Amino acid sequence: MRQATETLTIDTSRQGLVEVTTEIAAWISAQGVGTGLLTIFCRHTSASLLIQENAAREVRHDIERYFAQIAPEGAGYAHDDEGPDDMPAHLRTALTQVHLSIPVLRGRLALGTWQGIYLFEHRRRPHRREIVLHLLGD
Amino acid sequence: MRQATETLTIDTSRQGLVEVTTEIAAWISAQGVGTGLLTIFCRHTSASLLIQENAAREVRHDIERYFAQIAPEGAGYAHDDEGPDDMPAHLRTALTQVHLSIPVLRGRLALGTWQGIYLFEHRRRPHRREIVLHLLGD
Amino acid sequence: MRQATETLTIDTSRQGLVEVTTEIAAWISAQGVGTGLLTIFCRHTSASLLIQENAAREVRHDIERYFAQIAPEGAGYAHDDEGPDDMPAHLRTALTQVHLSIPVLRGRLALGTWQGIYLFEHRRRPHRREIVLHLLGD
Repeated sequence: MRQATETLTIDTSRQGLVEVTTEIAAWISAQGVGTGLLTIFCRHTSASLLIQENAAREVRHDIERYFAQIAPEGAGYAHDDEGPDDMPAHLRTALTQVHLSIPVLRGRLALGTWQGIYLFEHRRRPHRREIVLHLLGD
Repeated sequence: MRQATETLTIDTSRQGLVEVTTEIAAWISAQGVGTGLLTIFCRHTSASLLIQENAAREVRHDIERYFAQIAPEGAGYAHDDEGPDDMPAHLRTALTQVHLSIPVLRGRLALGTWQGIYLFEHRRRPHRREIVLHLLGD
Repeated sequence: MRQATETLTIDTSRQGLVEVTTEIAAWISAQGVGTGLLTIFCRHTSASLLIQENAAREVRHDIERYFAQIAPEGAGYAHDDEGPDDMPAHLRTALTQVHLSIPVLRGRLALGTWQGIYLFEHRRRPHRREIVLHLLGD
């Protein structure tokens, strides 16, 4: 059994879902592990991770619109030091996840056919985000 | 340290919570691991996983009713290719999880007294769902 | 590769977020693991875990207020055996997480600068809560 780790840097350009499946799958392939466990960890409190539908673009738009409604800007938050999108970003992060764990089977992530891995940027301005990958396996 | 994996197939008959604790606990027992880590991964974007109260049936009904309200059908979604329950299913999956990690202590899952593991079917029609189990330990 | 486990007991005094980062980071240091994976598991259905901003106190207040609004008391729940804060506690747990996984790099948790680990007590009365820590690494 062995471990491998990597830190991915992702430059986001706007609020919303950014697919990272390809980069992560490529890193997994390069590790040469047959069976294992991948953990993905987002080192932020205003961006999060989500596994969601990777086919219909409308699904991603509806998800973005939904989280904008359920944790809206301008709802009288005590914290708004960094602007109106600051506190909603923390809430949308709390409602989703900052870590994902995905088994590796026969050298590949055990994602379903329609599952993609997304970084969910919750701030309006571009940000540089760090995601830590940790793989255990053999 | 060693690994074991399994894929469970669960046929759901309706929208709602389906308890899978017994099957998963039985699989853990059969692996003969004393200390370890179980990861459960749901290979879908319209069904999810939840650890919740396993005693009062009313809790599960209230949970089902709550998610039906918070991510309702007919809310003007752009995506409705597969019917009115399609997009709400993606949103309810995003609000819960597709992966769970549970430590194994003295050969048993470290669940609390009142915790059960549930597959949360978000589509109205019956579906065949796949859950991948990954165990690390010794 | 080796494993270590621990159970932390946390006495909560009121509804809200209780930071547990220091205790968990101290335990990690004591294990002497360079690279690894920490899993934190909350053994309850009315308290949960959250990684959130550890700097501005207002963020935590806004988070507490938000979850009180989004899963309110007195919303006509079928289950209220243990009082009006019972069912909202289950819903707020379902919307957040009972498990977290965090990589360990160079002997330290890979948390971002602004990330803290919180136990989220959802009941009004004081409770004794158990959190299981599981560390894999070498």
